[in-house]
Amino acid sequence: MSDRPAYDFERRVGALRDRLSHADLAALIVSHPPNIRYLTGFAGSAGLVLLTGDAVHLVSDRRYATEMEAIAAQGGFASLHVHVAAHAVADTIVPLVPEGDVGIEAEHLSLAAFRRFEAACRAAGRSGELIPAAGLVEAGRVIKDAAEIAVLREAGARLSAVLQGVMADIAAGLRETEVAVTLESGMRRVGFMRPAFDTIVASGPAAALPHARAGSRPLAAGDLVVLDFGGVYNGYCVDLTRTVSIGAPDSACLDLYDAVSEAQAAALSAVRPGVATAAVDAAARSVLERRGYGDAFVHSTGHGLGLEVHEAPRIGRLRPAPPPARAAMSEPETLAAGMVITIEPGAYLPGRGGVRIEDDVLVTGSGHDLLTTVRRDLVEC
Amino acid sequence: MSDRPAYDFERRVGALRDRLSHADLAALIVSHPPNIRYLTGFAGSAGLVLLTGDAVHLVSDRRYATEMEAIAAQGGFASLHVHVAAHAVADTIVPLVPEGDVGIEAEHLSLAAFRRFEAACRAAGRSGELIPAAGLVEAGRVIKDAAEIAVLREAGARLSAVLQGVMADIAAGLRETEVAVTLESGMRRVGFMRPAFDTIVASGPAAALPHARAGSRPLAAGDLVVLDFGGVYNGYCVDLTRTVSIGAPDSACLDLYDAVSEAQAAALSAVRPGVATAAVDAAARSVLERRGYGDAFVHSTGHGLGLEVHEAPRIGRLRPAPPPARAAMSEPETLAAGMVITIEPGAYLPGRGGVRIEDDVLVTGSGHDLLTTVRRDLVEC
Repeated sequence: MSDRPAYDFERRVGALRDRLSHADLAALIVSHPPNIRYLTGFAGSAGLVLLTGDAVHLVSDRRYATEMEAIAAQGGFASLHVHVAAHAVADTIVPLVPEGDVGIEAEHLSLAAFRRFEAACRAAGRSGELIPAAGLVEAGRVIKDAAEIAVLREAGARLSAVLQGVMADIAAGLRETEVAVTLESGMRRVGFMRPAFDTIVASGPAAALPHARAGSRPLAAGDLVVLDFGGVYNGYCVDLTRTVSIGAPDSACLDLYDAVSEAQAAALSAVRPGVATAAVDAAARSVLERRGYGDAFVHSTGHGLGLEVHEAPRIGRLRPAPPPARAAMSEPETLAAGMVITIEPGAYLPGRGGVRIEDDVLVTGSGHDLLTTVRRDLVEC
Repeated sequence: MSDRPAYDFERRVGALRDRLSHADLAALIVSHPPNIRYLTGFAGSAGLVLLTGDAVHLVSDRRYATEMEAIAAQGGFASLHVHVAAHAVADTIVPLVPEGDVGIEAEHLSLAAFRRFEAACRAAGRSGELIPAAGLVEAGRVIKDAAEIAVLREAGARLSAVLQGVMADIAAGLRETEVAVTLESGMRRVGFMRPAFDTIVASGPAAALPHARAGSRPLAAGDLVVLDFGGVYNGYCVDLTRTVSIGAPDSACLDLYDAVSEAQAAALSAVRPGVATAAVDAAARSVLERRGYGDAFVHSTGHGLGLEVHEAPRIGRLRPAPPPARAAMSEPETLAAGMVITIEPGAYLPGRGGVRIEDDVLVTGSGHDLLTTVRRDLVEC
């Protein structure tokens, strides 16, 4: 329930305090569970953190009392205070909120919860305002530290081993769900706590649906089968896709596969610090356009990985920047060392089939390291 | 991806329109995915519904184009219009919003998304206001119709069979995660799409943590082991807990188990239409208080089940009612026929162990039906 010992929470909190002071905020109320985990190690599903200039208050309810005591007892994080709320967690936070303007996580707090906070602050006679903030904790999370990279590297290796094993057993006649069971129990056996998202085993026409899951259809000769699965390992998410052929692929399938494979290679070779995320996307997209599959590539090239399976940076087309706001930090648009991302172009032909090839990549000081290492040619099962 | 054929979406939408007119709303923007699924059958992860007096607009992005075309093609739902958004889903909705006040789901829309909507409506020159609404769709979801009950009944029977099979194989020396793998692959094999939440296999001292998950600890003689798992079957969630003993339990374990068992029986026998949810909770709580475990029961007695694994009604102590608001419907505080709930009292002794026993129950016209049917005495493994 707690992963405190491995991480330097003081450093994370210190860097966040610097961002708060730039935004002229006296404190930040953190409600997004991955952000709470990043700042304190607390992995429960219900809780809040109030970060002030000199303290980190973690509040949760009685169900998590034992976990919170363990976090407090581990020490080594002098400014952390834990509170077991008798009633609503928010009510415990309000009396601890310092004077001055306080940020809230506008992307992660519901309008209703925000209004309840506002009313409670007003009732408590607070003078400062609640300021919609965004991306302040995420700005730290986007660059992984050595301890996080070690976890993600290990997770990528384990996920690769699971897929390598399962690919050897895929054959015509197996149902999509049977393959999904094998992937999921394989993940459990090598130490993943849970799938990071609904496992996709999409065969034949279903391979053309980027978000198909796994159904009862038996795999049949001539199918392309998209296997897209991921797991959560010590809190961190990895994500891997291969597309296999049941029996010999026809020339249309071969061409589709070859185009996606070329697109993925082009995007991978663009990954290094200082490169625009949009340039990595364009590297994949231009290959698919040239090969006649531009309209068949209906999603972005990739996304960041970490405590969430989709996090910053997005590897896609440049979007119009949001209007600047006092306490809102935008997602980075340039790669930097320590980012961990997926590279996963795909092409989908409705009614016929599809291909997606995905790997996880660490941006290093000089280029990139692949975290997943399954063979990337078209495997015939 | 779509479950439209089985359900009467016209009836659901009609009932929701009545609630909108009571709140004097011209339309409702629905952003909570389970609510979108309830109203349209669309099961994608990204989308919005705009429900007006004469139309239901479903908007999602290109990744879901094929699924949306299938929903539209199935017909039988005259007022449904689907839109594949080229850019932001919200931008496609705004031009369709009618004049007058329009509700938004305040509990499910982030403050930031709300403000973006507001700005887009202002830019489009809309005169009406966005009104924070709550519980309008959920008020329909809380009473399951015959098609939903059939799915939940089947899901409960399948989940029970999985546990019955796994319990026979539990033995000292197995690791918690190994038991979790068996439960999860068993669910997959009988047709569940995914676990409804992180599977809990909590042995020995970890059984005292209500939200422990499954770790690497091997089960050992004298342990109580809490097995709490659930699955999503055709979109609907069921949830089941048993606590078993590894070898013969000592007298302290026996007494704890017997007390929780008596509390569960008391709560179950209170379940019938017209009874206050708080009275069902009190039935369990008073047994545990009398037996000296009042402080050890740190959560509510149960919760509703349906498209979400935690939904209305909450079976717990009465909470202070929120202030009345124009478009906010509170959760029901009285049981009614068609509700499906869990009954799951527990008692937790930090450092020593814990017991929880949980079944899923349908409230019928005259009493209740158990949807889960695993033996409820203390099994020695």
